[in-house]
Amino acid sequence: MKMNDYIGLIEDKLNEYLEIEYPQSLFKSMKYTVMLPGKRLRPVMCLETCRIFGGEIEDALPTACAIEMLHAQTLIHDDLPCMDNDDFRRGKPSNHKVFGEAIATLAGDALLTYAPQTVTKHSKNLSPATIIRVLNEYFNYAGARGVIAGQVVDIESENDTKLENKEEILEYLHTHKTSDLFQLAMRTGAIIAGADDEKLDVTTEFAKQFGLAFQIADDILDEISTFEQMGKTLGKDKEEGKLTYVTLYGLERAKCKLSCILNDCRDIMSLHGIDSEIFENIITDIEKRTQI
Amino acid sequence: MKMNDYIGLIEDKLNEYLEIEYPQSLFKSMKYTVMLPGKRLRPVMCLETCRIFGGEIEDALPTACAIEMLHAQTLIHDDLPCMDNDDFRRGKPSNHKVFGEAIATLAGDALLTYAPQTVTKHSKNLSPATIIRVLNEYFNYAGARGVIAGQVVDIESENDTKLENKEEILEYLHTHKTSDLFQLAMRTGAIIAGADDEKLDVTTEFAKQFGLAFQIADDILDEISTFEQMGKTLGKDKEEGKLTYVTLYGLERAKCKLSCILNDCRDIMSLHGIDSEIFENIITDIEKRTQI
Repeated sequence: MKMNDYIGLIEDKLNEYLEIEYPQSLFKSMKYTVMLPGKRLRPVMCLETCRIFGGEIEDALPTACAIEMLHAQTLIHDDLPCMDNDDFRRGKPSNHKVFGEAIATLAGDALLTYAPQTVTKHSKNLSPATIIRVLNEYFNYAGARGVIAGQVVDIESENDTKLENKEEILEYLHTHKTSDLFQLAMRTGAIIAGADDEKLDVTTEFAKQFGLAFQIADDILDEISTFEQMGKTLGKDKEEGKLTYVTLYGLERAKCKLSCILNDCRDIMSLHGIDSEIFENIITDIEKRTQI
Repeated sequence: MKMNDYIGLIEDKLNEYLEIEYPQSLFKSMKYTVMLPGKRLRPVMCLETCRIFGGEIEDALPTACAIEMLHAQTLIHDDLPCMDNDDFRRGKPSNHKVFGEAIATLAGDALLTYAPQTVTKHSKNLSPATIIRVLNEYFNYAGARGVIAGQVVDIESENDTKLENKEEILEYLHTHKTSDLFQLAMRTGAIIAGADDEKLDVTTEFAKQFGLAFQIADDILDEISTFEQMGKTLGKDKEEGKLTYVTLYGLERAKCKLSCILNDCRDIMSLHGIDSEIFENIITDIEKRTQI
């Protein structure tokens, strides 16, 4: 299956799962950020991992969509004035700019339970034991020991000018803020396909490395766009002092590290006989966009 | 078992489940609101319902604690400046006053997944199918069709001066904002005890009525305390225009309605042979506090 076929499948299901009910403002707010145009990378990687290990893509669709809902939740709350205070997201007004802070906060809250509910409600072919395994992955990576831990450390590192162990902290926040959702996506895809522990370990390692690469690429693109915008006085003032791979190691070392990790990802694939045009294209796309 | 024994059990387990991990600020913020002194009414009613229908209290403890965590989550986010903007909760500074808005927002988010994770992690004696039933109850009552729906309608009714169908809207928001957590508590207690559909229906009806009574009592107590404080210029300005049972029907009619519903609760108990000193004491306590 091609990237666009996956995206089509995922967006059709997201539309179906997120029908507008009463109170409309809540459901519209939830759906607004989930349906913002995007690459659907996490759900695509969930479905592709399921396919690679011999599972039915259809069985993983509710879980893939749940992960996209969770991703949207993190964006809604990250953009709030008390967090990153961003007025725009993917070129559109951010959720709270459209629906107000109160509804945006509640829409994020609602997605946090709507996502796992989508798994239990629509995973008709999965056994109760498999559903619980998938939910445990969700709880683990979405919660206080996962994405949220990364977000907390990110916020606290930003306010701490005398930060020690910057390297360690950066790795922690990249692992949790970014890699965790990719680990969740790929691990659940593998679990639904019935992958054994060895395959699950390989999946976890690939997802972790890929997530780090994705975050470093993001840091590089942020740096390049800030640099390009400086002449237009659009520089991201609020991001100044933010701990990123580029601010810590410099642009060149970041590009080098990114190149290394992406090659590691390719090595993992070839070493374990993972045949995926989708993953290869995603890796190549990151390389191209960051102009390595 | 007596009320205080239940409370002791619940608080011990909450303490155990919410051990402080890294990042400490996050876990401390989560634990802070969960451990504020309170009556633990929802988890107590979960455990007592389990006992009434012949279940083991121990089997319901993780679920009871999860419901208390969920309750704390609603308090943390309700108190945020973009919501009710309350500086105090149960006589102590509210969560965001202690930990800041960003951490309070994230602690609420974290509790939303930590709660169901507590169920899957610690419910050793429940079958996977029962765990999924309990989680579905949680997702249903905690989410966009439950507590959060009530919260949204509450906020929107507050800003709408030309509101039509006030009676209907008040019932909707009381049902979802308040009754839903009691329904969740009692229904999961019954499910864990293996109660059949008929018993589950009775439980649902009792919980729904009890939740309405609880909310009307809260409205009455709010009104009385506002009245008492008027001379001290401590009147709750921001609550003015808020849609409550008292503002809509007046104090006397609210007291009358409360009395009726509490008697309905007693009728449900005697009609279905529900023998519970705990429930009787809770009902009597509400009567006394509202001086009917």
